[in-house]
Amino acid sequence: MFANQIKAGILGATGYAGAELTRILLGHSKIQTLFLSSVSFQGQTMEAVYPSMLNCGSPKSPIFGTPMVLETAESVIEKSDVIFSCLPHGHAEKAGEVCINQGKLFIDISADFRFQDDEKTFSKWYGKPYANKELHAMAVYGLPEMNREAIKKARLIANPGCYPTSAELGLMPALWHKIADTSSIIIDSASGVTGAGREPNQSTHFPEANDAISPYKIGAHRHQPEIDRYVSIMAGTPVETIFTPHLAPMNRGIVSTMYFKLSAPLSIDELHEIYASFYKDEPFIRILPAGGFASNRTVKYSNFCDISVHLASNKKTAIIVSAIDNMVKGAAGQAIQNMNIALSFDETEGLLTVPPAF
Amino acid sequence: MFANQIKAGILGATGYAGAELTRILLGHSKIQTLFLSSVSFQGQTMEAVYPSMLNCGSPKSPIFGTPMVLETAESVIEKSDVIFSCLPHGHAEKAGEVCINQGKLFIDISADFRFQDDEKTFSKWYGKPYANKELHAMAVYGLPEMNREAIKKARLIANPGCYPTSAELGLMPALWHKIADTSSIIIDSASGVTGAGREPNQSTHFPEANDAISPYKIGAHRHQPEIDRYVSIMAGTPVETIFTPHLAPMNRGIVSTMYFKLSAPLSIDELHEIYASFYKDEPFIRILPAGGFASNRTVKYSNFCDISVHLASNKKTAIIVSAIDNMVKGAAGQAIQNMNIALSFDETEGLLTVPPAF
Amino acid sequence: MFANQIKAGILGATGYAGAELTRILLGHSKIQTLFLSSVSFQGQTMEAVYPSMLNCGSPKSPIFGTPMVLETAESVIEKSDVIFSCLPHGHAEKAGEVCINQGKLFIDISADFRFQDDEKTFSKWYGKPYANKELHAMAVYGLPEMNREAIKKARLIANPGCYPTSAELGLMPALWHKIADTSSIIIDSASGVTGAGREPNQSTHFPEANDAISPYKIGAHRHQPEIDRYVSIMAGTPVETIFTPHLAPMNRGIVSTMYFKLSAPLSIDELHEIYASFYKDEPFIRILPAGGFASNRTVKYSNFCDISVHLASNKKTAIIVSAIDNMVKGAAGQAIQNMNIALSFDETEGLLTVPPAF
Amino acid sequence: MFANQIKAGILGATGYAGAELTRILLGHSKIQTLFLSSVSFQGQTMEAVYPSMLNCGSPKSPIFGTPMVLETAESVIEKSDVIFSCLPHGHAEKAGEVCINQGKLFIDISADFRFQDDEKTFSKWYGKPYANKELHAMAVYGLPEMNREAIKKARLIANPGCYPTSAELGLMPALWHKIADTSSIIIDSASGVTGAGREPNQSTHFPEANDAISPYKIGAHRHQPEIDRYVSIMAGTPVETIFTPHLAPMNRGIVSTMYFKLSAPLSIDELHEIYASFYKDEPFIRILPAGGFASNRTVKYSNFCDISVHLASNKKTAIIVSAIDNMVKGAAGQAIQNMNIALSFDETEGLLTVPPAF
Repeated sequence: MFANQIKAGILGATGYAGAELTRILLGHSKIQTLFLSSVSFQGQTMEAVYPSMLNCGSPKSPIFGTPMVLETAESVIEKSDVIFSCLPHGHAEKAGEVCINQGKLFIDISADFRFQDDEKTFSKWYGKPYANKELHAMAVYGLPEMNREAIKKARLIANPGCYPTSAELGLMPALWHKIADTSSIIIDSASGVTGAGREPNQSTHFPEANDAISPYKIGAHRHQPEIDRYVSIMAGTPVETIFTPHLAPMNRGIVSTMYFKLSAPLSIDELHEIYASFYKDEPFIRILPAGGFASNRTVKYSNFCDISVHLASNKKTAIIVSAIDNMVKGAAGQAIQNMNIALSFDETEGLLTVPPAF
Repeated sequence: MFANQIKAGILGATGYAGAELTRILLGHSKIQTLFLSSVSFQGQTMEAVYPSMLNCGSPKSPIFGTPMVLETAESVIEKSDVIFSCLPHGHAEKAGEVCINQGKLFIDISADFRFQDDEKTFSKWYGKPYANKELHAMAVYGLPEMNREAIKKARLIANPGCYPTSAELGLMPALWHKIADTSSIIIDSASGVTGAGREPNQSTHFPEANDAISPYKIGAHRHQPEIDRYVSIMAGTPVETIFTPHLAPMNRGIVSTMYFKLSAPLSIDELHEIYASFYKDEPFIRILPAGGFASNRTVKYSNFCDISVHLASNKKTAIIVSAIDNMVKGAAGQAIQNMNIALSFDETEGLLTVPPAF
Repeated sequence: MFANQIKAGILGATGYAGAELTRILLGHSKIQTLFLSSVSFQGQTMEAVYPSMLNCGSPKSPIFGTPMVLETAESVIEKSDVIFSCLPHGHAEKAGEVCINQGKLFIDISADFRFQDDEKTFSKWYGKPYANKELHAMAVYGLPEMNREAIKKARLIANPGCYPTSAELGLMPALWHKIADTSSIIIDSASGVTGAGREPNQSTHFPEANDAISPYKIGAHRHQPEIDRYVSIMAGTPVETIFTPHLAPMNRGIVSTMYFKLSAPLSIDELHEIYASFYKDEPFIRILPAGGFASNRTVKYSNFCDISVHLASNKKTAIIVSAIDNMVKGAAGQAIQNMNIALSFDETEGLLTVPPAF
Repeated sequence: MFANQIKAGILGATGYAGAELTRILLGHSKIQTLFLSSVSFQGQTMEAVYPSMLNCGSPKSPIFGTPMVLETAESVIEKSDVIFSCLPHGHAEKAGEVCINQGKLFIDISADFRFQDDEKTFSKWYGKPYANKELHAMAVYGLPEMNREAIKKARLIANPGCYPTSAELGLMPALWHKIADTSSIIIDSASGVTGAGREPNQSTHFPEANDAISPYKIGAHRHQPEIDRYVSIMAGTPVETIFTPHLAPMNRGIVSTMYFKLSAPLSIDELHEIYASFYKDEPFIRILPAGGFASNRTVKYSNFCDISVHLASNKKTAIIVSAIDNMVKGAAGQAIQNMNIALSFDETEGLLTVPPAF
């Protein structure tokens, strides 16, 4: 009935990205079985960690499903055709090597493989040299709207970071059309608290995160070098952006408001047309009609990236707002989109949910 | 590919229940086409009212979907096989008559048909006599766990209220097993703000609803006579419960904490077993393992009702907590479950999503 | 200018109760100097832990204030006339002994001294026998509306728990007037997340607490024996209540909805009059006019306890809703009210803020 | 005891700014009596509109206070020495004229008097010409950190808008020190929902505002011409800024993240020193120590403006974050600060509350 089904594994499944991958993959028609690993909860079940998943264990018969037991990474890798790694930065490289050696498709949610030939930047920001340069050389950056052809042939996919996804999708049309003064790019982003992961800390403690907008790591966030790397590739020239992240009192979503000076005058209609036509065949990018404002409210729980385009009152600066669900298009959903592409499934399989209106 | 597909219509589609029905039906494999009506927004598109639905218009090919135009109720009824009515209380009776006369399946989200032969209670609480008593006589109360056999043959289904769904599901096992002192039943409920609908008012204004728990309509909420009616049927004797609703600062969900004196001593294990076995074949009821506490957190966006059972420290009073998503099991999801039953589809079709962990 | 000023100290000042005491005491006209202790942050400043307090350090000249350095408990005790202890349960007994021996006024926010002669219950719920029974014998339970005369003479005050404050104030008029069937008392409470303290954990992690109502510790919360103890004293007979706490997605506030059968018929007007006259001279209790519903929304940041009285539709059960700010009337504010009484200051000194409307 | 006390009146007292003025003025030692006007609620009490204020009516004896009756504007003006106008834009001009003619101090919360000699800009954005040019000529823009000397002599004070307050305070040191390239100024702001006022609408409806960040009115917000006007005065040259407001899911607060290119290289220490020394005598401006990030979390319910200064990784662009409580420093608190200055009271009178830590 489900021909061409495969076995999927998630390493580090009990983190938030792992939980979100589990949620989506359980409804993916091409997944026959799902295997989950965890160091902290090995031997327990995923349902014990996330009671929301009770009775949802078996794809296609979720209700009377069997419990999802958390195994070792080794066991999961061996039994799976495709492995999603949600291990922390610095731990994916080794797992990737094992998977590649066993001929598996490896999709990494961490930053370990996002810098390919630029070991210098990676080691500066992540404090670790490459152990296996060849592996990094074969990694493909998994932003489908930029790299779809390469992803089709990839065996090792570096899934983009959440902020970088929102920023790069919002800037790509302008950069490819050379309409932006690349020395003037500012990315002002706000993220929901799931972006900080499952581990509680003082700044994610409800009474301290609630009802507050707090900037953090200005000029010092690890996502900036990733953004700069891919924005530079898109622009065909080295670009150093200005990136300011904020923590916002919401569970999910990133809203990036971006600014750049136009390199030549453009009307709002021309700017809109550049964006609309650039993405016209993309299943997950929605350029909002004139008058719309992108917000995470309309993309929650979905793989959509909503983008609205605006001009400042001075008509010289473009303002682009892009909104994603940080856990879906910014993590698990995009990883599944990458799997779909790499395995020649329908690219939208498992990802066509309608975002809830509230 | 989708044999036996039908055409579905939603009257009053731009309210919150209508939006939620739209969201779920767009992913329902048995729906060939969806028609939507609106008085306020007729001629406009659903996407203009709910930008979250942009590009989601056509089932099975949501991405490149055509806009969903809002039509008149007459037009929607004529073209549809099954009609979901999200019209306000008092307006569904007439629409139901039209639908029944045209041989359609009619599923009403309002309270209009929930009181069948008890016109007196209905008119007392809703201020309106019955216009067509026969219609009320054929209405089936759409709580599948109570009325599945009748729903299979129903043509006119009265979908339960949100609070009543949570209360009745939490009390039914105790009532059928005669373990509750029916004079002592207390239902203390908290609901998310979507329960108040799409129309803004002072109490749903963000600065006044945020960060606050507010009881309202104590002893005077319209859902109390509905609860009492069905609890009495379950108990086989007239029951008057005590029901206290609270508005809670969250979008979705109802958590009902219920209390009743045990008519005879029971251990917590015996109580748990009564609930677990009562619902053992129900696809959408999850009796939590001992030690669990039901919360709307684990059922959001799903048709699940989670129930946890407890004993007070005095061992004489049972405490039952039931949690639903008020917009799904408390409205749109249950309506679709009813449609699935009435049309002999798989009862879980379109409703098997895994609740997100956050 | 500020005659009769005293020196106050806070032990364990960096927890949430300590921070709230600091906030209020800095605006209290009878406090000349404030000393703060902390084990974890000793040697650092309070402003480094709570940047909200920057430049607020010196009472009466908050703006150009000097930093508030965190000292050892010994140092704070020695320099202070009155000591507020925010040490964890089990650690206050020793500190209290030192203070009493030095002739200080000791006000304990923990549960250590709330059980006086009932060591058995204390040690059952808090896992620790009394080290010094005499000390417990001199402790006065600091609920001013119940114990004002004793508090005037007290040297060791056990400040009530947050849930107990809301429950006891809501039940006291009914118990003293013997209108309640004491076998039927149910207390269904919801608390904001600050009630869990400053230490982050999984259930207070923003993405897990947000948008959710979650019952916890049903029949097993440490505040139940405290409630039962004082409710029994008020009733003049042993009472075992049923108490169910819920965590609600808000920073501050407790709303307790309480139920009891009336021991004799009463109209709503009679019930209202009993409550209104009982509390008519109390500065911090507001019995809402008929038609009002108590909510934490109207008492935030204030020492008020708002109470609304209702009858169930069966007219046999009273429903009382009481609302406090858990950090003020439920902790720091009540402690200061106790200090004011014990030191013969105006009872409302420092506590007369108008609760913000939003 | 309270020598030199005055009578204060609030026009349009039932809006959010009026409620906040009432809250603060009830604790202000120089206010003898407070008079309130309302068109919609005339004859009712303020406590009926805002139950949080029950029993708080009389300054200095708030607890047993008399109800605050809402009167006509005429009556309030006649009885008061100082009048705070919270009337909507377009309605303050007439009221101001009446007050000035009667020799009162008039402080206007609306935008009516913020444009003085620039009637053209005012009428373009607010759709109304000036009725009385002389009145506008005597208006003083009430940003004390900029205009303290003029405010001392003012009889008609135009209280700044909330976004403008946060932006202007964040930019002023850079502009006066000529360190900013004024063609590059970007102001990216997020505001809590109280900024939208008391009137509910779709975008402030809890289910639509909750858990979402939504930009709005990009390049078209009425606060931009106000910002540009005063930034230009500070800079001594015409400046057109880029201003993007966002609605954030919180009650109170504005966080503005601002960007400008440095006109000459500066180290972060030099930049910090420029800001710290510029504001060193200001009672309500707190320049955070290096490493701090300004957030509305630490200024809530207070008149503080917290500012943190940063450099982008390129070292060429300064990033300034300023945070205020939009209802206090952004409205009612600043208005009272202006009154204090104009009437030669202590500038901080009534405004020295410690911001709560949570």
